[in-house]
This record gives sequence, C-alpha cells and structure tokens, in this order.
Amino acid sequence: MSLWVSEIYDNDTTLNIKVKEQLFSGASEFQKIEIYDTYGFGRMLFLDDKIMFSQSTEFVYHELISHVPLFVHPNPKNVLVIGGGDGGTVRELLKHESVESVDLVEIDGMVVETSKKYFPEIAGELGNPRVNVLIEDGIKFVKTKSNHYDVIIIDSTDPIGPGEGLFTREFYGDCKKAMTDGAIMVAQTESPFYYPDVIRKLYKNYNSIFSNVNMYIGAIPVYPSGTWSFCFCSDKFDPIKDFSSERVEAAGFVKDLKYYNKDLHTGCFAVPNFAKELVTK
Amino acid sequence: MSLWVSEIYDNDTTLNIKVKEQLFSGASEFQKIEIYDTYGFGRMLFLDDKIMFSQSTEFVYHELISHVPLFVHPNPKNVLVIGGGDGGTVRELLKHESVESVDLVEIDGMVVETSKKYFPEIAGELGNPRVNVLIEDGIKFVKTKSNHYDVIIIDSTDPIGPGEGLFTREFYGDCKKAMTDGAIMVAQTESPFYYPDVIRKLYKNYNSIFSNVNMYIGAIPVYPSGTWSFCFCSDKFDPIKDFSSERVEAAGFVKDLKYYNKDLHTGCFAVPNFAKELVTK
Repeated sequence: MSLWVSEIYDNDTTLNIKVKEQLFSGASEFQKIEIYDTYGFGRMLFLDDKIMFSQSTEFVYHELISHVPLFVHPNPKNVLVIGGGDGGTVRELLKHESVESVDLVEIDGMVVETSKKYFPEIAGELGNPRVNVLIEDGIKFVKTKSNHYDVIIIDSTDPIGPGEGLFTREFYGDCKKAMTDGAIMVAQTESPFYYPDVIRKLYKNYNSIFSNVNMYIGAIPVYPSGTWSFCFCSDKFDPIKDFSSERVEAAGFVKDLKYYNKDLHTGCFAVPNFAKELVTK
Repeated sequence: MSLWVSEIYDNDTTLNIKVKEQLFSGASEFQKIEIYDTYGFGRMLFLDDKIMFSQSTEFVYHELISHVPLFVHPNPKNVLVIGGGDGGTVRELLKHESVESVDLVEIDGMVVETSKKYFPEIAGELGNPRVNVLIEDGIKFVKTKSNHYDVIIIDSTDPIGPGEGLFTREFYGDCKKAMTDGAIMVAQTESPFYYPDVIRKLYKNYNSIFSNVNMYIGAIPVYPSGTWSFCFCSDKFDPIKDFSSERVEAAGFVKDLKYYNKDLHTGCFAVPNFAKELVTK
C-alpha cells in the first residue's frame, strides 16, 4: 500500500504526492487542517484540501512576499501581516533591522499552534519580542487602525473560504486607511495560468485604490501551474524605480536567502504578455 | 468512468490530467508516442510517458528557446534546430526576417508526421521554403558542419532515452565547431527544482566550452515543478549587455507573442539563488 495526497485543480488536473505519514488532521472553527510528511517535499500543510506550503519550497513564497516590499520602502518600521499564521512571512520580515514591530493577525489559532508544533523552522520567530500575534479577524482588525503601518502584507488563503473577505475592494480601502503616507501593500494574487478571471477582478480593485499597482511572479512548484503572482501596491513607491540594489548588497542576510536577490527583485516584475493583459488598467 | 493520464516525477509525485480521448498511440524506432485531448490543457504530446507540450502552454517554451537568442544575435541568418520535430521552435524562428534558412534535424520522423496531423497550429511552418526538415541523428549531423550556423538550438527531450547524446561535452564541442564566430547556442536544461545534479553537470560542460554561459527560466505548467531552465552559450555575446530592447520594440510580431517581451528578456535571466549556485563556475 502506498499513501498519496492530492490537490485537485479545477476538477481536471491533480497534483499527487506520495506520503510517508499523516502527522495531523483536525478541523478548526474555520477550516480543515492537515499535515503530511511527504517523500518529495518534506512536511506539507493543507488547508481545506489545498496545499499551503511544503518545507522544501516555502522559501520562495515567504521571501518574495516579504523582501520585495521591504527593500523598496526606505524605512519600514511597523508591519502588518494578515493571515500568515505559519510564521514564514514573519521570519523573513524580522531579518530587516529597521522593522520595530510586526502585528500578525491570523483568524485561525489552530494554524498558529500546529505550525509551531510541526514546522518549528517556519514558525520559530512567532515568539520574537518584535512580533504581536493576534488571533483575530483581519477584516475587522484593519478597520480599527489609521495611518500606522509602513507595509501591509496580505498572506491569505484563496478567495474561497475564510480568505474570501481579504479579496474585496472594501478591505483594500480599509488597508489604505491603516497605512502611513507612502506605505506599501503586498498580496498574493493566485496563478495567472489558472485564475485569469480572479486576477482581472483583483487588479481592477487595486487599480481603483492605489496609483502604483504591479504584478510580480515566483516559481512555487506545489501551487497550481507552479507559478504564482503577487501584487505590489503603493501611492508613492514604484517597485523598480525606487529600488536600490545597493541596499540589498549591504544587507548581510541576502546571501543566505534561497530565492531572492537583487537581480531577481527587478526580474520578477517582468511578467509574460498573457499575464500583463490581465492587469492592465 | 473518467480517463486520466499521468506523468510520474521521481516516483513520488505525479501530475494527473483528465482526458477527453486518446488521439494517437504508437511506437517509433526510438520512443513511445502518445497524443491525448485533455480538459485542462487541450491536446498534449507525450514521448516515453513524459509530457512534451500542451496546446495551451507550448507558447512559453517555444518563444523562450527562440526569441532570446535571436534578439541577441545581431543578424541571425542560418539556424540549426536539433530535435524540435513538433515545429513550434521553427514557427517562432521564422518570425525573424533576418533568418534565411533553418535546418531542423529530428531523429524521429514519426514525431514530425504526428505533429503535422494533430498539431497543425504548431507544425504549420515545417513546409515553409526557408525550412529544411532532415530526419537524421543530430549528433552525427552536427559533426559534418563547420563554421556555418549563427544560432544552434538544442530542442531535445530529457537526458534519458533518444535525447541522451545531446547532453554530452563531445556533442557541445561539435556544435561549437559548426557555429560561426560569435554564434549562440541555446539548450533546454531541465528543472532546477527537480534535477539539480543534471544541471550542475550540464553547466560544467557548457562552462568548459563557452565563455558566456547563462541560465534563464520560464514558467511551464506541464513540466515538473512548473519552472524550466534554458542555457544561453556564446563566446562573443552576453545575453543582457548585448541585448537591445529597441530591436524588440521595432519587431512588429512581438506584440502578438503570449510570453516574451523586452522586460522579460532581461527578467528571465534573473534566476533564484538556489539555481545560481548550481551553475556557478
């Protein structure tokens, strides 16, 4: 007998991964949570049957969603992460010395607890004194803040299920109010190969709220199509014109990253024609 | 009953695609050839159980392997394609007016014939008067040529099976002899996520023969990991320093491409740190 776990994409394609053992299976108030130890990708977290990350590839997503905005903002001090209860984004953010405080607002406490237990190398910085972990609804939380965050990162699940409200125009408007002048918002925005209609709608929302809206992409083998997109939004900063590669070179930690580097910062904003068409105003 | 076709990666991960019908199944002298019409990706070609391309995503591979070298070489007239019997690379090459002659050397005539029948939109230019289709062993063919080709493209299958000899140092040496002064060789070089050891070996070979050796990457959802690499080799040209975005802007056909554009030309050479480490001299 061999045990396999599958993610089903659009009912007509599946990625199947051979499993050593199931480490955790539970249901929180919000979603089904499963953790498997796999042959090809190490341990993996599934939420509602969707792969969130694998130990062997999580660096791509977490480095891209963090270092891209933090190497554009000249002095990011206060950062808000919505979602991201696994702690991978927080781990990357804390590598920036300018960061004084990270508020992590995760709706599902079980994601935080299981990540701490099964993924210590990802969740290990959640107890750092610079981090406030808040088990709350990010949509409600962000409404209470005004002119406070230099960077907001929407590290959410897909737009179906608990993450749904994190893809609405109203929520992005509330984020903008919570941001300081010249702040940056970054969000994961799905696969341009699989979800063109979702992307069109999302970027229409971003474009109606922010003056600089740019897609960037990364290679994530465990997500549908293997290519994932992110959105960089700001009223002040352009992710390429306002990027200084000298700052990356001066940051000692970059040489130890597995994905991000100064050339890749610019390169990841060079999106294919078919994806560009989805996000043009 | 539902019919599915699978590609198995390393025995521990599979990509499964739901099939409408099998259109062709046969065996040539060299390999097993199958064509399926699928729900998610249109028609797909499999050689020896490996996905070669799908109708919906073939543009990525064919645009990247062709336009990257042809927009660096200042005046590519004679081009050699080794493999590529489906005709997709040829289709892209002919978009460049400077190209006077393309020799396509494919070892397996059945690949050419089945592609013409089942993929006319890919193979449609194989009868173009600028193209010579030669059903021959590329390894032997290239030994007969000297100082002739401005660009050589190794559009091969994987390094196991009929494509094996196209990954050796001896073959690359023969290619170099067949190239004009300042010519460019490009090859597909597998997935950096799945085949790090193959890539290390390959680039060691390239580095021992060419002075400029650069990896570039593309997003190909039907290949293992969804990310594929290519190698740009030349003794004269650097793929970025010797690239002029004005030439891309002046080429009318680029606006109709689905993947390649002037920013992407530079962007695709910005490879992640973990892949850079594999190819460093």
